[in-house]
Amino acid sequence: MTVYKETIKLESHGQRPTFIDITKSVKKAIENSRIKNGICTVISPHTTCAVFFEEFVHDYDENGDEFLQVDLNNVLKKIIPDNIEQGQYNYPGEKHFAEVESWPEAEFYLPGGDRSALLNCDAHLKATLIGSSETFEVDEGKLGVGTTGYVYFVDFDRARPRPRKCKIIIIGE
Amino acid sequence: MTVYKETIKLESHGQRPTFIDITKSVKKAIENSRIKNGICTVISPHTTCAVFFEEFVHDYDENGDEFLQVDLNNVLKKIIPDNIEQGQYNYPGEKHFAEVESWPEAEFYLPGGDRSALLNCDAHLKATLIGSSETFEVDEGKLGVGTTGYVYFVDFDRARPRPRKCKIIIIGE
Amino acid sequence: MTVYKETIKLESHGQRPTFIDITKSVKKAIENSRIKNGICTVISPHTTCAVFFEEFVHDYDENGDEFLQVDLNNVLKKIIPDNIEQGQYNYPGEKHFAEVESWPEAEFYLPGGDRSALLNCDAHLKATLIGSSETFEVDEGKLGVGTTGYVYFVDFDRARPRPRKCKIIIIGE
Repeated sequence: MTVYKETIKLESHGQRPTFIDITKSVKKAIENSRIKNGICTVISPHTTCAVFFEEFVHDYDENGDEFLQVDLNNVLKKIIPDNIEQGQYNYPGEKHFAEVESWPEAEFYLPGGDRSALLNCDAHLKATLIGSSETFEVDEGKLGVGTTGYVYFVDFDRARPRPRKCKIIIIGE
Repeated sequence: MTVYKETIKLESHGQRPTFIDITKSVKKAIENSRIKNGICTVISPHTTCAVFFEEFVHDYDENGDEFLQVDLNNVLKKIIPDNIEQGQYNYPGEKHFAEVESWPEAEFYLPGGDRSALLNCDAHLKATLIGSSETFEVDEGKLGVGTTGYVYFVDFDRARPRPRKCKIIIIGE
Repeated sequence: MTVYKETIKLESHGQRPTFIDITKSVKKAIENSRIKNGICTVISPHTTCAVFFEEFVHDYDENGDEFLQVDLNNVLKKIIPDNIEQGQYNYPGEKHFAEVESWPEAEFYLPGGDRSALLNCDAHLKATLIGSSETFEVDEGKLGVGTTGYVYFVDFDRARPRPRKCKIIIIGE
């Protein structure tokens, strides 16, 4: 019985949700682990990001987003519209702004002191709905999904581009 | 420390979402594993299917669906209406149709070449919201849930009946 | 390779969803486990409760709920309004009422025989959407999340206060 971990580094582009097909990285990590049977858990350590399992589709919109991603955005927007101005949601409140502005790394969270970088309530709520982790089967040394199944990492934060990490943890024998 | 796996075979009926109470199978797999303490992860390898934890209820509608399942369908439909005609969602697009039609197993995905079998965008989005895996406790050799807790597998695909698989993976000692 | 488990005892307050920040308990359990690398799965064994990963925020409404929790409630209510009277949802049906009333522990589920204690369809559906488990990384003996990441337990049941449990299971080496 072994535990094997890999961290993959990703870049979100901001402006709209960033969807990244990480299936190849997940399959490669399983291969590297030499684990034959067990589980593979894929985890986002960021609170505006999520992990999900979906079909890969072959049509893209003008931004390069796959059609099922565009449809997912449209559906979520019906109850969680883009956070474009303060007051639209309760979050972020005055104390939260003040707290973040007091952090040593404030420049990372609010570049140039621009408070609009925290107008990402929609991203937090969408990530909570989709979930921060998903667990897959490791089956005879392979990712246990059908031919149409892919693993996606999404950063719903539209406020700004950012480096992101995704954790792949494989446990088995 | 051991890993133990079982695959259960299920049938979805199409026409409306198929909900299957798999609690007995999960409990039996835990018994078969002889694992006393650890985790039991239940996984759908299909992108229109999901796994969730819910109360078992004693009332059914005219189709035989439990009341909480009917209510879940009604709630999800508010933002994800049934995909009944092309153009309602972006998915499936022209390239995706062409790609699937080119596959050696095209007949499985589009029986008789009928493109309506791919009008299941709603099923993909619902499965993404509910999630493809759920992890439970194995507690002293039993499924660690209360008396009212049950494990359900759902195939949201209404387009056609299909054989389905569900993976049960138990890790512990 | 070891499996380590802790059960934490919580109290839900009823009247509105109960959100509990369990991050300290999760971090303490990881410390107690002495496991350095692996996974930490946090599980609700109750069907109106869920577990999720979210930012901790510093502003509260008049009830003491964090702003992102208030926003989550508002968003979920759009499709799953509070279950305030019978007939609003299919659940709970007549057979379910009769069944629960026949249980030896009926007084726990329906205190004083008051059927309104089962008017919690909204809580069941919300918990299904958010999910009953979430898995985190154990990284060098610590919970593998950023500085803004917290773990929350939520009981969506507004019908009445209740003792609740949450399971923390750590597997690794």
